[in-house]
Amino acid sequence: MISRSDVEAARRRVGSRVRTTPVLRADGLWLKLEQFQHTGSFKARGAFNRVLAAAERGGLPEAGVIAASGGNAGLAAAFVARELGAAAEVWVPETAPPVKVAKLRALGASVVQVGREYADAYEAATKRAAETGALFCHPYDQPEVCAGQGTLALELEEQTGGVDTILVAVGGGGLMAGIAAALEGRSRVIAVEPERCPSFHAALAAGEPVDAEVSGVAADSLGARRTGEISFAVAQRTGVRSLLVSDEAVTAARRALWERHHIVIEHGTAAAYAALLTGAYAPSADERVAVVCCGANTDPTDLG
Amino acid sequence: MISRSDVEAARRRVGSRVRTTPVLRADGLWLKLEQFQHTGSFKARGAFNRVLAAAERGGLPEAGVIAASGGNAGLAAAFVARELGAAAEVWVPETAPPVKVAKLRALGASVVQVGREYADAYEAATKRAAETGALFCHPYDQPEVCAGQGTLALELEEQTGGVDTILVAVGGGGLMAGIAAALEGRSRVIAVEPERCPSFHAALAAGEPVDAEVSGVAADSLGARRTGEISFAVAQRTGVRSLLVSDEAVTAARRALWERHHIVIEHGTAAAYAALLTGAYAPSADERVAVVCCGANTDPTDLG
Repeated sequence: MISRSDVEAARRRVGSRVRTTPVLRADGLWLKLEQFQHTGSFKARGAFNRVLAAAERGGLPEAGVIAASGGNAGLAAAFVARELGAAAEVWVPETAPPVKVAKLRALGASVVQVGREYADAYEAATKRAAETGALFCHPYDQPEVCAGQGTLALELEEQTGGVDTILVAVGGGGLMAGIAAALEGRSRVIAVEPERCPSFHAALAAGEPVDAEVSGVAADSLGARRTGEISFAVAQRTGVRSLLVSDEAVTAARRALWERHHIVIEHGTAAAYAALLTGAYAPSADERVAVVCCGANTDPTDLG
Repeated sequence: MISRSDVEAARRRVGSRVRTTPVLRADGLWLKLEQFQHTGSFKARGAFNRVLAAAERGGLPEAGVIAASGGNAGLAAAFVARELGAAAEVWVPETAPPVKVAKLRALGASVVQVGREYADAYEAATKRAAETGALFCHPYDQPEVCAGQGTLALELEEQTGGVDTILVAVGGGGLMAGIAAALEGRSRVIAVEPERCPSFHAALAAGEPVDAEVSGVAADSLGARRTGEISFAVAQRTGVRSLLVSDEAVTAARRALWERHHIVIEHGTAAAYAALLTGAYAPSADERVAVVCCGANTDPTDLG
């Protein structure tokens, strides 16, 4: 469980190591442009907080940092380790696209490919961390990771003077949890998922995190099968609301962000904007609304 | 000739009709993200100032606004006219790409196609303006247009606390002139052009605006053959420096902006960043440097 004070502590800890990403005021909305964060996503915030907190507690282990992710969480862990002078080992399935493996290596990480699915890489990485003593950086389900992601919300609050509502796309739920903890009692948090990546929606329905089937256009970024325990607990405590949007709406929203606002982001995080475009979330006339844009690791070819 | 007070007056006049575009602090630079301006470029700033100043002087003419441009200046004139409830007529050559004509029409403009070259459309448009009494909005060579563009510099100054040096890509020179007037005695202004669009460089060499041959990857956005009279006068008075970069450097800079910073902009305006990448401009260690990014009307297909 985390609260605003954990997020404030994270912000002091990470300081200027993360970028203050810009906000754009457009069509009556605040768009938080987190795709301009180091390595293209908010994941650098949580990874910095996780690794710096460990360093404070007694220094980083000789074996460095270990992560399991072929996506943005892996890139962030590799970047953070490099910035802090630590070794990074990133475990990914054998099916990981070569371009992603190359990006991780370019950041100086050792990449280990094992198994056919993400779950195989995850299991192997946690076992390896236990053997070597390396610091495991979870993509979402660790308090320091969630608190680090929440620093985005403190920035946004300063940049906008506060909003009534913030819409955020949800995968494992780390960013949602960090934002909800940071803004508890201050802003409404709307968690948006594609219908085909509904792990948070399914958890709310079941009353606890459960496995969901994931597929579709956003599965590469929002495809966590099960919402994190921390995310779920924070979301329940703070009253996060859940909305679903179709894959078609996600694709249309990503295109609209480019055509209307010249923003290029991944499919997954366009889900937040899709909730407005479809009317799934309909703000009142004077409601101050922010949308988190994120995820620059996308191929813009189809936006031509 | 324009000075900082003209730019300050422009800023009061246009107020919140133009967007305060965000800045990104990255790799020790300030990147001004003007591609997020209405219609994707700084041209909306100058067009608003031009049209609102005319309205102050005695109302807008019944015939509305007229412009000659198939590019960003035309889009801006059409947008500004629509926002202010005026008619817009935009003249372009018969060779203008259908996609550009469609964009102008989508903004409510009447599009007139005449001649084979931009010069034909320009001549016809000014003649038409004289006949109908419509307000002609020049793409760069009018004091109110230049002063409006300069509002970008006042924003940047507030957002950064001031910089030592600002690099800007130059076509007709309206933005350069506005920035130089706004920051005279405060910041060094570096005007960057592709070698194949060297109209400002040629003007400095000749001691006056002269026709230059224009071609290459940036000709669609920076292809003004002759620097504006106002631009040249302001640049001479304020000591703007001129640098050239190759088309290859421009293309590499546009790609680097995407790969390093997740920014998608037109080739032309990437010239400013190219001057840093190539070392054509080498800042000192503690120099505060800003680069103007601009121009969202680009096809991102080749960045895949």
